[in-house]
Amino acid sequence: MRISQLSAESGVPIATIKYYLREGLLPQGEQTSATRAEYGARHLRRLRLIRALLEVGRLPLAAIRKVIDAVEDEETSVFHMLGTAHWALAHPVEPHTDDEEWQGAREETDRLIGELGWTVDPESPTRGELAQTLVKLHQLGMSGDVRPYAEAAERLVAEHELGKVLGHSREGAVEALVLGTVLYGRVLDVVRRMAHESEAAKALSPRPEA
Amino acid sequence: MRISQLSAESGVPIATIKYYLREGLLPQGEQTSATRAEYGARHLRRLRLIRALLEVGRLPLAAIRKVIDAVEDEETSVFHMLGTAHWALAHPVEPHTDDEEWQGAREETDRLIGELGWTVDPESPTRGELAQTLVKLHQLGMSGDVRPYAEAAERLVAEHELGKVLGHSREGAVEALVLGTVLYGRVLDVVRRMAHESEAAKALSPRPEA
Repeated sequence: MRISQLSAESGVPIATIKYYLREGLLPQGEQTSATRAEYGARHLRRLRLIRALLEVGRLPLAAIRKVIDAVEDEETSVFHMLGTAHWALAHPVEPHTDDEEWQGAREETDRLIGELGWTVDPESPTRGELAQTLVKLHQLGMSGDVRPYAEAAERLVAEHELGKVLGHSREGAVEALVLGTVLYGRVLDVVRRMAHESEAAKALSPRPEA
Repeated sequence: MRISQLSAESGVPIATIKYYLREGLLPQGEQTSATRAEYGARHLRRLRLIRALLEVGRLPLAAIRKVIDAVEDEETSVFHMLGTAHWALAHPVEPHTDDEEWQGAREETDRLIGELGWTVDPESPTRGELAQTLVKLHQLGMSGDVRPYAEAAERLVAEHELGKVLGHSREGAVEALVLGTVLYGRVLDVVRRMAHESEAAKALSPRPEA
């Protein structure tokens, strides 16, 4: 298809498509004459992925480029390609290595991962993110027992999420990972607040609704 | 204690305390002379709550005022007071009543709540939030089966969260609700991404780590 049709089918404006082509985020089409190029399903798939990273993942362009590089490099294993997407979605935290409280929380995080038997890269930004949240919980005198959350998350991922990611093309797997992480994360956040309202009603309502 | 000591104990600058007093967020101290007032445990507790709403809940001042009003008004039941805090933490969504897709998602949400047997106010902003996320999932061709998330959330709230909120003073209950909603929400988000990395490693690693 021509670039105009690619734009119509993907919903991405022609100027934006040209920008992605210049930036190397989208592979060049097949040149059929000096002024014409043909695009195909592969370009549509890539545009879907870029939009997912941009609009749902809200990733900056530099992060999108890294993810696309991992998708394009067939030498990169699917595991490492997905890891690149995970890291791009993280909110990295500066480690406070000279702060005892932070160090303690970081050791607590590492111990928890060990006890759960999870395989999480020692450099994964999620370790620092959890440590920082533990510091905050401790400072506020709240329970740092996060095992119930970890176990619930493990069950959800194993039974309902991972299967949606694997068994796609490379592009499709990354797209499913990013959309799933963000959107089902949003679902989980909302239904948890709903459940809170409902459980509080059960516990406090003098006369439960029929 | 004097205002300087209240500031020292709470970590809130004197100028900020004076601002809260002027705005009525903090009750006046007991006037002991024309220029002196005494503050007590009640003021400390209120300052803790304001900071929780502001720094962890990231609520705007208008929302904080509503929550404080509900805390102060002893006529407001604990259930409605907690509800005020819940609503303040929501991200209300404009209902698109003339949009069929949105209407369908909203009906799906209402049906789900009914099937789960949950008590959620018909006007609760969480209903619109879930409907909007369902619209996005449908548009992207992803599964809208959010029951597993709802069931996991219900278990977490009933077994681990609600007990931390009830059985406090009014101030303490709202503080625990806001801190718990935000911070354990953050925990859940991080451990879910960790679990994803770990489950992907299990599924894809050619030789699992020892």
